[in-house]
Amino acid sequence: MTMSELRPPSPPRRHLLSIRDLDRADVERILDTARALTASLQREVKKLPTLRGRTVVNLFYESSTRTLASFELAAKRLSADTMSLRSAGSSVDKGESLKDTALTLAAYDPDVIIVRHPSIGAPWLVARYTGAHVVNAGDGKHQHPTQALLDLHTMREVLGRLEGLQVAIVGDVLHSRVARSLVEALGLVGAEALLVGPPTLLPRGIEALGCAVSTDIGDIADADVVYVLRMQAERMGPGEAFVPSLREYTALYGIGPDRVRSGQVVMHPGPMNRGIEIDARVADSDAALVTDQVRSGLVVRMAILYDLLTVAPVEAPVHAGMA
Amino acid sequence: MTMSELRPPSPPRRHLLSIRDLDRADVERILDTARALTASLQREVKKLPTLRGRTVVNLFYESSTRTLASFELAAKRLSADTMSLRSAGSSVDKGESLKDTALTLAAYDPDVIIVRHPSIGAPWLVARYTGAHVVNAGDGKHQHPTQALLDLHTMREVLGRLEGLQVAIVGDVLHSRVARSLVEALGLVGAEALLVGPPTLLPRGIEALGCAVSTDIGDIADADVVYVLRMQAERMGPGEAFVPSLREYTALYGIGPDRVRSGQVVMHPGPMNRGIEIDARVADSDAALVTDQVRSGLVVRMAILYDLLTVAPVEAPVHAGMA
Amino acid sequence: MTMSELRPPSPPRRHLLSIRDLDRADVERILDTARALTASLQREVKKLPTLRGRTVVNLFYESSTRTLASFELAAKRLSADTMSLRSAGSSVDKGESLKDTALTLAAYDPDVIIVRHPSIGAPWLVARYTGAHVVNAGDGKHQHPTQALLDLHTMREVLGRLEGLQVAIVGDVLHSRVARSLVEALGLVGAEALLVGPPTLLPRGIEALGCAVSTDIGDIADADVVYVLRMQAERMGPGEAFVPSLREYTALYGIGPDRVRSGQVVMHPGPMNRGIEIDARVADSDAALVTDQVRSGLVVRMAILYDLLTVAPVEAPVHAGMA
Repeated sequence: MTMSELRPPSPPRRHLLSIRDLDRADVERILDTARALTASLQREVKKLPTLRGRTVVNLFYESSTRTLASFELAAKRLSADTMSLRSAGSSVDKGESLKDTALTLAAYDPDVIIVRHPSIGAPWLVARYTGAHVVNAGDGKHQHPTQALLDLHTMREVLGRLEGLQVAIVGDVLHSRVARSLVEALGLVGAEALLVGPPTLLPRGIEALGCAVSTDIGDIADADVVYVLRMQAERMGPGEAFVPSLREYTALYGIGPDRVRSGQVVMHPGPMNRGIEIDARVADSDAALVTDQVRSGLVVRMAILYDLLTVAPVEAPVHAGMA
Repeated sequence: MTMSELRPPSPPRRHLLSIRDLDRADVERILDTARALTASLQREVKKLPTLRGRTVVNLFYESSTRTLASFELAAKRLSADTMSLRSAGSSVDKGESLKDTALTLAAYDPDVIIVRHPSIGAPWLVARYTGAHVVNAGDGKHQHPTQALLDLHTMREVLGRLEGLQVAIVGDVLHSRVARSLVEALGLVGAEALLVGPPTLLPRGIEALGCAVSTDIGDIADADVVYVLRMQAERMGPGEAFVPSLREYTALYGIGPDRVRSGQVVMHPGPMNRGIEIDARVADSDAALVTDQVRSGLVVRMAILYDLLTVAPVEAPVHAGMA
Repeated sequence: MTMSELRPPSPPRRHLLSIRDLDRADVERILDTARALTASLQREVKKLPTLRGRTVVNLFYESSTRTLASFELAAKRLSADTMSLRSAGSSVDKGESLKDTALTLAAYDPDVIIVRHPSIGAPWLVARYTGAHVVNAGDGKHQHPTQALLDLHTMREVLGRLEGLQVAIVGDVLHSRVARSLVEALGLVGAEALLVGPPTLLPRGIEALGCAVSTDIGDIADADVVYVLRMQAERMGPGEAFVPSLREYTALYGIGPDRVRSGQVVMHPGPMNRGIEIDARVADSDAALVTDQVRSGLVVRMAILYDLLTVAPVEAPVHAGMA
């Protein structure tokens, strides 16, 4: 994949590639749909006929329990057929290019393709070569818009509002597509984001996304939500040296019971490293919304599929794309 | 996972974690259901609408053709939706704890979780953290209750009875969860178990399960059923030295045509090592019920799912748990 | 698997193991069915109830995006249930023989088993031990009949006829099951095949299949169709030395724009090695039918499943088998 191929698809179409594809009305419509779907999941039979006969393909070039399971189940609960292609055991092993895989999938004429890929921009490439709706399920350290939407949904359902919320996002911002998408999503709904972490894990110029930045963990005290990012242990230590040691990171930025004040809620995109970025006592406390986030993931992804497949694109959004 | 976490779930619920969860009436009800389902499978269209809209999750941390395929197909034939998570390509790779995986799955609110795991007690841990019915599909060398039930079903359908049957279980008892569960299940229905193998593969004190023990292969002559355990070749030889050599094991305990008397049937949980614990002439003879066991596996697992999801738990069984 | 086991199944049954199982009327019936199914796929809801309640098992011992995805989707679009077993994570890892896997699958009583296997003859072995219809999805370098049928369908739909077509098949014929099946299929419908490649990649005596052979790339000029075979890069270079180097192969036999004359179409079974056996300018040109082939794969495999499961076998074909 070359960068020159990464331009937005020529015919206007509805995808969910980046939070920048959405405006505030889009976000509110998706979250309202998710709320309505929650009611349907509380019935004994948890299946809706909405997308019967539609095909949803999951194209995953990175391993993931949560995201893949969440999309598969969301599609099945709407009665869609699913097909999941992973890099292991696929033509990827034979060196087929992402472009040719996209063209191959396009020929099967699926309704939606969900893409997770280690390269920034891969979902845009897939969108360019298929007639399907494409959803970005994580591209490199770039975007993870469905995670941001499920986080908004969780905050809205638990705290009752989004406007004016203060959200402190703590940890490895540098490598986090979750952080990038969430900051943009919070901005869209009138909430405020503060990024907190060691200087080596805070990318230069990240304030441009519209957030405050601090290296002082004490600054999370004012937040309504403490959002803890996953620490990727393989990026630590003598090799890359983003932090001197995991132990020191935990001491300086790990979220233990002493760092969470009464009334705050704690979120984490999972999977958690208990004892590293989050203390088990916090993870298992009533303040933690981790399980709520997983549950939100299911209804929000159902809502996204519903939105793409049933709402007529009156005016297609312009893709902010790879700028 | 620490052992202290392995206590039974607090609210009474219906699971199938161990043969000890069942009494004789439970076993008979499940086998009767399996018999009734067999009739349904002989129709041209092999699908029943019984569990439409229900979700069955297979959480497999060990590879398995037979057990995973059998549960997937059982769930699909009852019209349930299935989702299979394997250790490869999942968050397990990222070091997520079984507890967090269980909490994640719980948030999706599945109806049943089928668990296979190399650690003893893992299904109890999953049961503790989810609201789903949990079925143990094999935990370490501890329990494999659905295998024991399909073996009982096979014996009952082929031999016409269970009460009073003599079953000789031959081979690597030490590493076999199949043997443990089967001995307990045979005791429950009034059949008798005899364990036969070299001293190094017969665990001390195994008689406490309520079975006879012998190192003399000649003692299988009185049995109605010769149940051959899979020999795990990787456990043999100079390294662990449970037996001096596979060749010697085969000579002393392998089941060849000369060791099966007329009227006996031969069973094996599969996959077979032809030429090691069982001779191909026996495996392919009319005495062998191996294919019947596989077929039983499908209807018995359908019966188990049906039993968990449709029978009201009037009185929940007390879990014998990890004692 | 020993060769002595590879004899045709004793009861006459309908399988698709080799193009030799088919006569011209069979091919035309399957292609007509595929054409009819194409119309159904153009409706908004792309699902037909034809095979509801039937079970299709995919038994894949080799990795494949295209073929596995195509069969899974074909089965689902006809409302069949599917189960896919791959070598990784299955009993294959435990050394279970193909015969025992076939017997195990047979016990589940599936309607169709799709087999891909690196050993020549494997699908015949599976057919021998199961009551299911068996489809060969590629066995070693022997046969790949569904690929040949989808190629015929693509030619017929695009060029309007098969009778009298001239098809030049270029490249690594030696290792190609696609080439073998396609040559036989072209013969069946009155088209002519010319095999072109370096002498080391043209098997001796291949003319016996009923085709012309040439080492001169210039001879493709007369063809209606230039069919480019995948070059398997791992077979090149000092180790096996079928060609001196990939660069030299590309210069002598690679299909660039200068080698395609106006009016010719170009086909490739995928996945393509762009820049090796086919130039990207050709692959992306209007002359290339690669995406049409993928699309044909779906409807032709639907047609094959439909044909096996709904057409009564008035007279079962005699298997040419492993001769």
